[in-house]
Amino acid sequence: MQLSELATPALVIDVDAFDRNLATMADVHPGRRLRPHVKAHKCTALAAAQQAAGHSTFTCATPREVVGMGRSGVGDDLLLANETVDAARLRAMAELDVPVTVAVDSIETVRAAAANGIRSCLVDVNVGLPRCGVEPDRAGSLADAARAAGLDVRGVMGYEGHLMMVPERDDRRARVADSMSLLRAAHADVGGEIVSAGGTGTFDLHDETGVTEVQAGSYALMDTHYGQQGLPFEQAVFVVGTVISVGDGWAVADVGLKALGMDHGNPAVIGGTVWFCSDEHVTYAPDDAAHVGGRAMIVPAHVDPTMAMHEAAWIVRGGEVIDRWPIDLRGW
Amino acid sequence: MQLSELATPALVIDVDAFDRNLATMADVHPGRRLRPHVKAHKCTALAAAQQAAGHSTFTCATPREVVGMGRSGVGDDLLLANETVDAARLRAMAELDVPVTVAVDSIETVRAAAANGIRSCLVDVNVGLPRCGVEPDRAGSLADAARAAGLDVRGVMGYEGHLMMVPERDDRRARVADSMSLLRAAHADVGGEIVSAGGTGTFDLHDETGVTEVQAGSYALMDTHYGQQGLPFEQAVFVVGTVISVGDGWAVADVGLKALGMDHGNPAVIGGTVWFCSDEHVTYAPDDAAHVGGRAMIVPAHVDPTMAMHEAAWIVRGGEVIDRWPIDLRGW
Repeated sequence: MQLSELATPALVIDVDAFDRNLATMADVHPGRRLRPHVKAHKCTALAAAQQAAGHSTFTCATPREVVGMGRSGVGDDLLLANETVDAARLRAMAELDVPVTVAVDSIETVRAAAANGIRSCLVDVNVGLPRCGVEPDRAGSLADAARAAGLDVRGVMGYEGHLMMVPERDDRRARVADSMSLLRAAHADVGGEIVSAGGTGTFDLHDETGVTEVQAGSYALMDTHYGQQGLPFEQAVFVVGTVISVGDGWAVADVGLKALGMDHGNPAVIGGTVWFCSDEHVTYAPDDAAHVGGRAMIVPAHVDPTMAMHEAAWIVRGGEVIDRWPIDLRGW
Repeated sequence: MQLSELATPALVIDVDAFDRNLATMADVHPGRRLRPHVKAHKCTALAAAQQAAGHSTFTCATPREVVGMGRSGVGDDLLLANETVDAARLRAMAELDVPVTVAVDSIETVRAAAANGIRSCLVDVNVGLPRCGVEPDRAGSLADAARAAGLDVRGVMGYEGHLMMVPERDDRRARVADSMSLLRAAHADVGGEIVSAGGTGTFDLHDETGVTEVQAGSYALMDTHYGQQGLPFEQAVFVVGTVISVGDGWAVADVGLKALGMDHGNPAVIGGTVWFCSDEHVTYAPDDAAHVGGRAMIVPAHVDPTMAMHEAAWIVRGGEVIDRWPIDLRGW
C-alpha cells in the first residue's frame, strides 16, 4: 500500500528516521544504560525494535503497559516508574513471567506492593518536580521499611521532568547536576545497584551524575516540543491528513485535536502555518495552494498523548507503507 | 459495584445530572428541533438516552460515528456535519439502513458523495469560523451542482463555533444573529427544509435566527469551559482518580493528560486547585489533607476529547455504579 492510500487521520512512522534515532541513542547509552520509556509510544512492536537495538530493560508508566509488555515477551526487566495501590493491578504485574519492579514513595505504596506479590522496588525520590517521590532525606527509612516488608530494594529513581525544557544546554546541565545530587544522596542511604533518571531532554547530561540508567522515550519518535532543543534525533512520527476544505487563505485537514496531544499547544504542519485545531480539523495557512483531496503532514507537539489516541501506527519508507504496528498498550 | 471500587482513572457519569440536562434541553428544543451531536460523547448508549428523550436525528463529526450509529439502530436520520472525500467511508455510510446526509462545501465533496452512493446533503456555509463551509454567496451555485449530480439538497448548515465562548450573553446573541443572517441568505439561494446550526453555547439564542434545528452536544455532560457560561446544564461527567502520592502542600492523583482533553487547559479538581498535569498524573493542592489511596474527582476542561480517551463510561447514581456504557464510536 502507498502512503497516499491510507485512510486519514493516519499516524505514520518514518522508519528510516526512527531507525537512526534508535542507533543514535544506542551509541550514547548502549544496552542496559538505557531503559526505554514505553509511555512515549505504547506499542510493543516499537519496543521490540528498541530491544533489537540492544535494550532489554523497559520503563512503564501504567500497569497496563507493564502487563502488555510482559505478555508480549519483549523485555527482561520491567519497571513501573510510577506509584499504584491498586491490588488487582499489582497482582497482575506480579504474576507475569518477567521480573517487575515498581516505584514506591510512601509506606502505603510499599505495603500495597508487598501484599500483592511484587518482589522488587525502587525508591522514587523527589528531585525537584512536585509530583511523586519521597523527600531525599526520608528515602533511607522508606528503603528500610520496604526491606522489612520483604521487598528487594534495587536502588532509587528520580525524574527531573521540570528540567527537560530548560532552553540553554549549559544551564540545563548545571541544574540536572544539582537535581541529581539529591538523588545520589538518597541513593547513599538506600543502597542497591540502580540509579534511574533522565529523559530525552537530558539524555546526554548524565555522564557525571551517578545515574546508571536513563529512562528516555520520546527520542524514538520526537515531537515539535523536543524538536526545539537541538537534540540529535529526527522527527519520525507524523499524522497524515486529507485536505477536506479550502478557504480564502486557509485550508482544512481532517486531523483534529482528537488525533493530537494538545497539552503542548498546536501541532505544526509541513508546508504551512497552523491557525487552530478543532475536534476533527486543523485549519492552517498553506505556503502553496492547497486542493481538496490533497494531503497534509502534521507534526505533533507532544508525542506521548498523540500515540495514545491512535489504534495503530503505519510504518512507512519513502511513499510505501511496509507495516502496521498496533498501539496495543493504551488505557490503564 | 460501588464508585469507590472502580479502577482508576475512571470516566463516570452522574446519571441524575445527565438526565436533568437531557430534560432541560428537550424542554427548549423538543424532538427534531435538536439534532444532538454525537462527537461530544462518542457513545451509542448515551445517544439512545437522547433518543428516549425525544430526539431521533443525530449529528456526527466522523464517518465512524455515522456508521457506528447506523449499525446500533439508534436514530432515524444521521448527518455527517463534516466534509469527506474518502470513497470507502462514503460507501460505508451509504450502505446503512438509516438515511445519511453529508455536508458539502465544494464541488469535490459533492462529486465524492454522489459517486459513492450518498443521496442527501446539506450545503455547509461559512458563517464566520474559518474552517469548512462555502462562502454564502456561492452556496446557491453549489446547491445547483449538487442537484445536478443527483443529490437531494435538504438545506444548509453553518456552525458559529467562533461565538460559543463570547462571554456576555447579549453580545453573543447579537453576534449569533449577524452570523445566522449569512446562513439565512445562503438558505434563500439553496432551498430545502433544513437550516442547521448552533451548539451548547448558543443553544437558546436561535429563536429568531431561522434555524430549524440545533446541533448541541456538550450540554449532556458539560465541562469546565462551558461551565463558566451560566448555562442551565450541570456538570455530569468526571474522571475519578486515586491519590498515589502526597507531598508537602500537594497531592498527586492518577488522572493525567492521557485521560483528559487538554486543548482548553487544565481540568479542575473538586476540593482542590490543580497545579499541572503530566501524562499519567495531576498534581494539585488539596483543600483538606489528602491521603494515599483516597479518591479525587477531576472535572474535564473539554468533554469531547476527554470522552474519546476512554474505553467506557461508568454510570453512577449516588455512590453506586449502575451501568457501563462503551465509548464505542472512537477513532475514524
